[in-house]
Amino acid sequence: MVLFCLMKSQIRLLGIDDSPFSFTDRYGMVIGVVMRGGEYLESVLRRHVLVDGNDATFVCKDMIKKTRHRKQLKAMLLDGVALGGFNVVDIEDVYKSTDLPVITVTRDKPDFEKIKAALQKNFRDWKDRWDLLAKGELHRIKTSYNPVYVKCTGLSIEEAKEIIKISTIRGAMPEPIRVAHLIASGVARGESYGKA
Amino acid sequence: MVLFCLMKSQIRLLGIDDSPFSFTDRYGMVIGVVMRGGEYLESVLRRHVLVDGNDATFVCKDMIKKTRHRKQLKAMLLDGVALGGFNVVDIEDVYKSTDLPVITVTRDKPDFEKIKAALQKNFRDWKDRWDLLAKGELHRIKTSYNPVYVKCTGLSIEEAKEIIKISTIRGAMPEPIRVAHLIASGVARGESYGKA
Repeated sequence: MVLFCLMKSQIRLLGIDDSPFSFTDRYGMVIGVVMRGGEYLESVLRRHVLVDGNDATFVCKDMIKKTRHRKQLKAMLLDGVALGGFNVVDIEDVYKSTDLPVITVTRDKPDFEKIKAALQKNFRDWKDRWDLLAKGELHRIKTSYNPVYVKCTGLSIEEAKEIIKISTIRGAMPEPIRVAHLIASGVARGESYGKA
Repeated sequence: MVLFCLMKSQIRLLGIDDSPFSFTDRYGMVIGVVMRGGEYLESVLRRHVLVDGNDATFVCKDMIKKTRHRKQLKAMLLDGVALGGFNVVDIEDVYKSTDLPVITVTRDKPDFEKIKAALQKNFRDWKDRWDLLAKGELHRIKTSYNPVYVKCTGLSIEEAKEIIKISTIRGAMPEPIRVAHLIASGVARGESYGKA
């Protein structure tokens, strides 16, 4: 049983977050980190996405397929469902193309009405983005800290909960997402700040 | 005693490493990470130095003075004594200006004859750079893995050894340097590689 727990605590996870950007920026940086459970950083990946573009799904798939850690990875953890503004990630497409389960985690419950209004105002293809954003069930998961809001594909919500629990050290966010956030914001701004 | 060990294992360390660069690059990126002992990443800092320039000492001092974690920091750990090629860090100046002890750690024993020849060939101010590089005693420290080569200022070699021991998890390099290396190389190249 101890060995089993140890093995689980050592699973490799890919955490992804984007850098802060201003609306004059054409590209945003995307950082991926490969961690063993919530403890040991094994690798750092870097890509770019178009701010409010349509390439976030491709960029996630490309990161997964090209990293030399692909075979060890058990799941991808994503801070929300978009990178670089409203550049929405199709998590089902990521899973189907790569065979890697995907879990999205956010601290705050998305305000869907506000998001829909922003999409309608700013994008001709707002309906496509909205459909991607609204797709899949959103679960409210209790943690020892605050609740988080989770979507998952390629694994059950029970498995997703266990991965989140294994990889969270302090607070509510899994380490692979927290560390990706620190790197992305630190490199973009000079000193990291805020929470994933 | 347990509490004392716990406190020591939680000391805040600043680890610094530079990104890989090609000789057509004017600037190299410098990454700083603030960690609690060898375990928990608290912050990521980013600066640039001129490749083969003279600003590495200033950049290190600036990172230390400006981070909001300054008051918690107990030591700075540096991968070698130069950032961005032969941009040598004057670690005594860093210590005197910031009051933060500095430890340099390298995996390989520097080949001083080769370094001196390269400096003489490429720099009019080779003597100044050489004096900085050669300054201070170089200690060979055994670890459970391979030995490392260490210089320190602002603390005793015994204290430096203890900090290296506390902050090393796997292999021979302290985590703050290992993590700074992974971030610097991953952000510069797209995927991190090699050892600090």
